[in-house]
Amino acid sequence: MQPFELSLTAAAQQIRERTLSPVELVDSVLSRIGDTEPRLQAYVTVTAEQARESALQAEQDLAAGRNKGPLQGIPVGLKDLIDTAGVATTASSKVRAGHRAEADSTVASRLFSAGSVLVGKTHTHEFAYGLTTPQTRNAWNGERVAGGSSGGSAVAVAAGEATFALGTDTGGSIRVPAALNGVVGLKPTYGLVPRHGVTSLSWSLDHVGPITRTVEDAALVLSVLAGHDSRDPACLPGAPTDYRLTAPQDLRGLRVGVPSNYYFDHVDPDVESVVRQAIAQLATLGAELVDVEIPMTRYIQATQWGLMVPEASAYHEQTLRSVPELYAGDVRILLEAGELMPAGDYLRAQRARTLMRQAWAEMLDTVDLVAAPTVPTTAAEAGQETHTWSDGTVEAVSDSYVRLSAPANITGVPSLTVPVGEDRKGLPIGMQLLGRPLGEDVLFRAGHAYEQSGPPRPLAPLG
Amino acid sequence: MQPFELSLTAAAQQIRERTLSPVELVDSVLSRIGDTEPRLQAYVTVTAEQARESALQAEQDLAAGRNKGPLQGIPVGLKDLIDTAGVATTASSKVRAGHRAEADSTVASRLFSAGSVLVGKTHTHEFAYGLTTPQTRNAWNGERVAGGSSGGSAVAVAAGEATFALGTDTGGSIRVPAALNGVVGLKPTYGLVPRHGVTSLSWSLDHVGPITRTVEDAALVLSVLAGHDSRDPACLPGAPTDYRLTAPQDLRGLRVGVPSNYYFDHVDPDVESVVRQAIAQLATLGAELVDVEIPMTRYIQATQWGLMVPEASAYHEQTLRSVPELYAGDVRILLEAGELMPAGDYLRAQRARTLMRQAWAEMLDTVDLVAAPTVPTTAAEAGQETHTWSDGTVEAVSDSYVRLSAPANITGVPSLTVPVGEDRKGLPIGMQLLGRPLGEDVLFRAGHAYEQSGPPRPLAPLG
Repeated sequence: MQPFELSLTAAAQQIRERTLSPVELVDSVLSRIGDTEPRLQAYVTVTAEQARESALQAEQDLAAGRNKGPLQGIPVGLKDLIDTAGVATTASSKVRAGHRAEADSTVASRLFSAGSVLVGKTHTHEFAYGLTTPQTRNAWNGERVAGGSSGGSAVAVAAGEATFALGTDTGGSIRVPAALNGVVGLKPTYGLVPRHGVTSLSWSLDHVGPITRTVEDAALVLSVLAGHDSRDPACLPGAPTDYRLTAPQDLRGLRVGVPSNYYFDHVDPDVESVVRQAIAQLATLGAELVDVEIPMTRYIQATQWGLMVPEASAYHEQTLRSVPELYAGDVRILLEAGELMPAGDYLRAQRARTLMRQAWAEMLDTVDLVAAPTVPTTAAEAGQETHTWSDGTVEAVSDSYVRLSAPANITGVPSLTVPVGEDRKGLPIGMQLLGRPLGEDVLFRAGHAYEQSGPPRPLAPLG
Repeated sequence: MQPFELSLTAAAQQIRERTLSPVELVDSVLSRIGDTEPRLQAYVTVTAEQARESALQAEQDLAAGRNKGPLQGIPVGLKDLIDTAGVATTASSKVRAGHRAEADSTVASRLFSAGSVLVGKTHTHEFAYGLTTPQTRNAWNGERVAGGSSGGSAVAVAAGEATFALGTDTGGSIRVPAALNGVVGLKPTYGLVPRHGVTSLSWSLDHVGPITRTVEDAALVLSVLAGHDSRDPACLPGAPTDYRLTAPQDLRGLRVGVPSNYYFDHVDPDVESVVRQAIAQLATLGAELVDVEIPMTRYIQATQWGLMVPEASAYHEQTLRSVPELYAGDVRILLEAGELMPAGDYLRAQRARTLMRQAWAEMLDTVDLVAAPTVPTTAAEAGQETHTWSDGTVEAVSDSYVRLSAPANITGVPSLTVPVGEDRKGLPIGMQLLGRPLGEDVLFRAGHAYEQSGPPRPLAPLG
């Protein structure tokens, strides 16, 4: 196994034990980037020189016994919405071409303080306002979309172009590309991970979180990211928590909700059967399966869009006036349309969210988590605009990607996607585990037990 | 002195000492209502029979040694937005004619549990959407407005028609009528007093609070009202606090901010000189006066209206469609106009509020409270629409009433108005003390020391 193939936990252990040097690891990842980037296009910017310097510094620190933290020498890719001092942060947009932040975002700063080495900035659907990341190819099949908006981050992790990455998630933008590329993605509880220095799409729905190859890795990264920062006005109080996993436990005593509505409606048969097998595996591991009814489902789409669209337009108000021609057409149209929305529609969405939060809290009083498909289909073909369901219903691909993700954004509950198999075309399928606010530890425990009960997952095949 | 003239604290003490019976007190207040209501019109409904029954029960409880709480046998008037089981709550509107709530609001329930006796529901500007309370006359001069929207409550307290009352304050609606009628009014910290069962005007700006004859009385009522209730989603966590005052203290060590901008601009000369004398009195009592600059003043009006107007329209959406003809013209026009506001304007107001809260928090780090006029003029003549300032500027009367009140609604900081004198026409003038979030105790301490340093205030003269 080459160093770029190692999970974060394995690489960190080998570095700690001095059987792998940070320079070897970073060189391996950079070399992999050189091999695969022409095909994948996951990165906006690769910071090779800076990464090698940081790796050398990490090696010297290790040799001198200086412990920088649990991510010492580990290569990371950051979505190009996440500010890093001295490296351009463009949001994959001409509007921000060459834009350099003066300071690291809080999450970048916490990763770097824990020893992580930046290898590059990954592609996003422009300003995170879309579900496909058109610049980037799916790591499993070059004819297929990467998913988005954190498509670059998910593809980089799936292909060994980064040991882990960060993404952002406003309507599924961490979980959708993670699921479509066969990796793990966490949208944390709203307010748990600070967003200071991260470009906003819709501030009441935006989350930052890890994309990794294993659940164990996600728990390790969240332990570094979480904790209060007063510069994000929505950030929750509270000190950092140690989410790191030890030996996998069985799942006795865990009540897993299985949705009797919504999450299995208009879902591809392969996706449904693979996710139901994964849920059955949770039961085999000791969990008790309980039917749950998802509340207020007919409000989900209107609430998600009613919150997101005007907040996005408000954020872009100035540049939409001054440089409209620099936006991609799809994004500009959404931003312009958002300016026409009446305040009453936004307020209706806010009020619906308040009621949905209460209704979800009541549902989550009855179970420890809910297990469901992450995305109703596997990766669409590049350029495919709609999906036709067996009952003849036609749905926009992006709508189908948001549909099962949005409830966690609206309510703020954490959601962890884990790879659970493939469809008959060999494309990966994700299961999301949705938990109570600040119940990340429960999601990690369940996801880790599931993961450990199967064979190790290799990197994406780059088909 | 007749019982209806007693302050709440004095009446409660005499009842505790059995030198005054609840029946005597309630009968005295009801008799006063009979004498003065034809002139004042403070009440929508007087609950005479029910009040006499409650007073009799209180008397029996006292005789049997049953202590119901600190308000045992004390007559209260509640603004007609505040639900009371079995008594109509009409919001002074034909839209709600005869509307009876099934349960008490949280604040009514807490008052009744503490022993208070409901004497009636007081007039509000329809649905609290105005600053004059056109149904009600000023307690000092029948040709003058009561101020609003809690005009009925302030006039009832000022005239001895209730020993204390509750109002609501979205843009000054407790403080403005309290100041214009020479009584004490508190707009508490946002989220301190639960609003469950209180008709909303603009949920992100609405507050419930006491109107009393003394600061001591306001502290006693707040001790009963404050504390968490999960049925108000904006209600702060935290147990009730005992704000009750003991002996007045001097004000040594207290830093009082005196605004160098905004609060003395476009203020009537009599109001300015009386308030500045009151501030000088705080210094005489030991406080240190410090100049402060009020931040972001040019955003105040747009932020207040940008938040209030669409939230009010959203609340009334259904009835505005079904029974528009039942609203008064001024209110209907405001509600209809609010439906046309774009979401972007509302979001700009939300973002300005976030920045204003931060800027006020920084200012309030430098002082313990800010002292300023409550209203820039004394009570306007009934029907007067505008006020012309000495520089020729013309301002709508209602805009002038909101102008100095709105900052506390936008930022959520507490504000206590206390009577500080009269203008040359003999109309009362109020000074507001603005404090840090949850700093009500500091405001009470300063207001109480000021009050105790002067002669007792008689009831309003009913001119």
